[in-house]
Amino acid sequence: MGATVEQFNHAKSQMGTLKEDPGNEAKLKIYALFKQATQGPCNTPKPGMLDFVGKAKWDAWKSLGSVAQEDARQQYVDLIDTLLAAEGPAVATQPTGSAATFNTLLVSTEDNITTIRLNRPQKKNAITVEMYNEIIKALEQAGKDDSVITVITGSGDFYCSGNDLTNFTQIPEGGIEQMAKNSGELLREFVKAFIDFPKPLIAVINGPAVGVSVTLLGLFEIVYATERATFHTPFSQLGQSPEGCSSYTFPKMMGNAKASEMLLFNKKLTATQACAQGLVTEVFPDSSFQTEVATRLKAYAKLPRNSLALSKQLIRGTEKERLHTVNDQEVERLVERWLSDECMQAIMSFFQAKAKL
Amino acid sequence: MGATVEQFNHAKSQMGTLKEDPGNEAKLKIYALFKQATQGPCNTPKPGMLDFVGKAKWDAWKSLGSVAQEDARQQYVDLIDTLLAAEGPAVATQPTGSAATFNTLLVSTEDNITTIRLNRPQKKNAITVEMYNEIIKALEQAGKDDSVITVITGSGDFYCSGNDLTNFTQIPEGGIEQMAKNSGELLREFVKAFIDFPKPLIAVINGPAVGVSVTLLGLFEIVYATERATFHTPFSQLGQSPEGCSSYTFPKMMGNAKASEMLLFNKKLTATQACAQGLVTEVFPDSSFQTEVATRLKAYAKLPRNSLALSKQLIRGTEKERLHTVNDQEVERLVERWLSDECMQAIMSFFQAKAKL
Amino acid sequence: MGATVEQFNHAKSQMGTLKEDPGNEAKLKIYALFKQATQGPCNTPKPGMLDFVGKAKWDAWKSLGSVAQEDARQQYVDLIDTLLAAEGPAVATQPTGSAATFNTLLVSTEDNITTIRLNRPQKKNAITVEMYNEIIKALEQAGKDDSVITVITGSGDFYCSGNDLTNFTQIPEGGIEQMAKNSGELLREFVKAFIDFPKPLIAVINGPAVGVSVTLLGLFEIVYATERATFHTPFSQLGQSPEGCSSYTFPKMMGNAKASEMLLFNKKLTATQACAQGLVTEVFPDSSFQTEVATRLKAYAKLPRNSLALSKQLIRGTEKERLHTVNDQEVERLVERWLSDECMQAIMSFFQAKAKL
Repeated sequence: MGATVEQFNHAKSQMGTLKEDPGNEAKLKIYALFKQATQGPCNTPKPGMLDFVGKAKWDAWKSLGSVAQEDARQQYVDLIDTLLAAEGPAVATQPTGSAATFNTLLVSTEDNITTIRLNRPQKKNAITVEMYNEIIKALEQAGKDDSVITVITGSGDFYCSGNDLTNFTQIPEGGIEQMAKNSGELLREFVKAFIDFPKPLIAVINGPAVGVSVTLLGLFEIVYATERATFHTPFSQLGQSPEGCSSYTFPKMMGNAKASEMLLFNKKLTATQACAQGLVTEVFPDSSFQTEVATRLKAYAKLPRNSLALSKQLIRGTEKERLHTVNDQEVERLVERWLSDECMQAIMSFFQAKAKL
Repeated sequence: MGATVEQFNHAKSQMGTLKEDPGNEAKLKIYALFKQATQGPCNTPKPGMLDFVGKAKWDAWKSLGSVAQEDARQQYVDLIDTLLAAEGPAVATQPTGSAATFNTLLVSTEDNITTIRLNRPQKKNAITVEMYNEIIKALEQAGKDDSVITVITGSGDFYCSGNDLTNFTQIPEGGIEQMAKNSGELLREFVKAFIDFPKPLIAVINGPAVGVSVTLLGLFEIVYATERATFHTPFSQLGQSPEGCSSYTFPKMMGNAKASEMLLFNKKLTATQACAQGLVTEVFPDSSFQTEVATRLKAYAKLPRNSLALSKQLIRGTEKERLHTVNDQEVERLVERWLSDECMQAIMSFFQAKAKL
Repeated sequence: MGATVEQFNHAKSQMGTLKEDPGNEAKLKIYALFKQATQGPCNTPKPGMLDFVGKAKWDAWKSLGSVAQEDARQQYVDLIDTLLAAEGPAVATQPTGSAATFNTLLVSTEDNITTIRLNRPQKKNAITVEMYNEIIKALEQAGKDDSVITVITGSGDFYCSGNDLTNFTQIPEGGIEQMAKNSGELLREFVKAFIDFPKPLIAVINGPAVGVSVTLLGLFEIVYATERATFHTPFSQLGQSPEGCSSYTFPKMMGNAKASEMLLFNKKLTATQACAQGLVTEVFPDSSFQTEVATRLKAYAKLPRNSLALSKQLIRGTEKERLHTVNDQEVERLVERWLSDECMQAIMSFFQAKAKL
């Protein structure tokens, strides 16, 4: 039973009212259903290897095979309806105080604690270009405000699912080379903001953590995790290489025999394993996680402010120059990787796998 | 029921027969009771912020409120009696051999093992200026003698309660600035003696360890601990910052997520926790601690002397220059800290809390 | 009951048919029995301290005391028979592919995995001069071939018993000084081959590991061990000092308090202990060891080749220069040690203890 052209057009117009970017996999599906509904089965030539956005779209359309146009219209209408329903009433947790200027974060300061909350829960707090820039800005402000400690955590069930791969689909004027260069420069500045952060930095890992949100943990002073958290850095699987200074901090903290399992061979760690290997300070039952952590943070925030900041700087000072060098090398390697066939194929496979779900 | 003036004067004269310094908190109490007994309630103006010895004395006196003079005399008499009784018959454990020249240490050499025993058990082996100097001297001698390994341990129930804070109450000619400078220079030389020590150095942790006695452990080859031992470095609580090269050795051995808990946030570790984090080599039941450790040490002392010393130097050689730099930076930071309001207030609170006990 | 001269001569002639070097202890015994059988009790003067091969032979002969010549002939005949029987039918596990050019190794490439198998199981895979050179060559080839990962493992029950001490009994023209210099140069090149190896390197520890086969593990990416494996580095016991970059990698991975136990005080670790201290990635039951490891290796070998190699190089790059310096320093120290009386006496005691078994 297919939808009418009228229903289809209504759904199409409603799509503009979506408040959130529905994410790459949904957009590919929408694209494919639209093409199928309006033009029938995919009949254009397969795009070249390097045009991987075009290729992903083509693959999504092609994957619909000979689905009839009215059925494609119906699926299109259903998908838009689902996306609209999923948004529901606006969650609207407004940050208190002066921090209402961020789109992807909730930032607030209370009891000498500045909290930076990643706030794209529908996208598992995946980091978009906008969020990278906002985190850099939020850290800059927190470094200068009156707080004693700074906390990073996530909204919803995930801590952070890492780099939002759709960042790679917005290809600028200069083509893929320019995109890789821009992404590298943004990553370098992002990691730099953590290396240079002048106060104790505390991660409150409220759920699974992936990619750069894991590798950065070596630059935090304290990492508290719920037992539900997992730690995953699937770089080689995506044809990429480690960042966030993890190529230096992970072997330093856990030895190469454990670090390679994560950074080369994509092993996902439980919170307890991550704690045994020095990546996590302490693990808590999920039911008491927020209250136990809050108690600790309040006590920490009452300690002498300068003593804490200067002690942190003393400890990190012995390796700060090294960390900047490592960051530069990691970014350079990663930019090369992004332009490699290996990486492009791996990312394309990732999108295709998602598009077929 | 108050003491007579005669009883009071007798107690006062007996105070001169105390063999041991009764410690800062007792001395503050004695001072306060003396003032209260002879002049009544505190009636002098509160000393300025930087005169923290004067302030501590004034606070102790003030804390007695309106206690009557005869009651103050009685408490004074009782306190002196208690201190005299506590000393009891002289313990008089004389060091064997050539080592009878130390006041705060027992040093002896037997079976190729030189043992340096911190020997101020009544003061939990807190390190006075004299003891710092004696340990430097004892290490210098042990480095040159015929022994194969050198052991540091404590008399009594404590291993060491760290820096004796009364070191900060003896203000020299040049004022607080000079005191901070002198203390920094002494600490630098003290830590240097450990960095440069040429033979295997073994800590036998017979009870709780605090402050610099913990931070130095990263410069030992072996750390054996009784299960009763605890490890505590409450620097930020006292407005201070880490020393003993711990700002480098602790993150290196246990990762920043664990090291920051100790060095920034004052977490006290059990022996088992310290062992899991690489600070301690092995933990033993208290009942068999001394015998099990003695068995190991005897076996070690039979190994080829030069092979051990040269292997240690090879291992430490890769980071010796770094350790000296770290030591310098830590001392510089700490001297600044000692002169900060934050630190002075924290130390004053410490003395006041003790005085009120 | 003694053997006849004829039986004795027959045994003597059969000795030439042994395919394998029976090892130093057996050869000393054969030497001693031969002397006793043909010349009677030892009657030559004890060799000088520095002639330690001569001394070992003399000790072995002397240890036979007044054993009658016919009894010595019988023991000689029995020993040769035992050695011949032990060899049995040739084991003859020929390497597949192009790798048939090694005498002490089995090298093969399959499913993107190059495996280098130490293949002197009768000698517990002790590393002879020939094997050092062959491993260097095999690594050079594996670094250039098409494989994704490279695996090192052992034939038989042992992973590797370390340096074959009989290497020290082949004294060249230039005397002991030359031997020490040559051995140092070989060791330096050997360790260098591991430092510079460009792909992920995986150790499959199928049984006990000793000496340089343990110290090198800090240069591997992954170390899988059967629960039967042990890890032993008895350097100081033999008057020697650590190599394989362990003076740097071990303290880095496990802290000095644990590293010194192994590198200075000869502690033998179980597989579980080695895993807790970061030397081993994962431990498996002996019964499922080979299959579980094979499953993991096959999965790893399917990951993007360049991503893995470049990520490894990124991680190791931060310390490569340092590793080469450490290697040089370790070798220099070890060459000095080999020429020291302490070391010569310790090695002689080792041979004598074996000869008396």
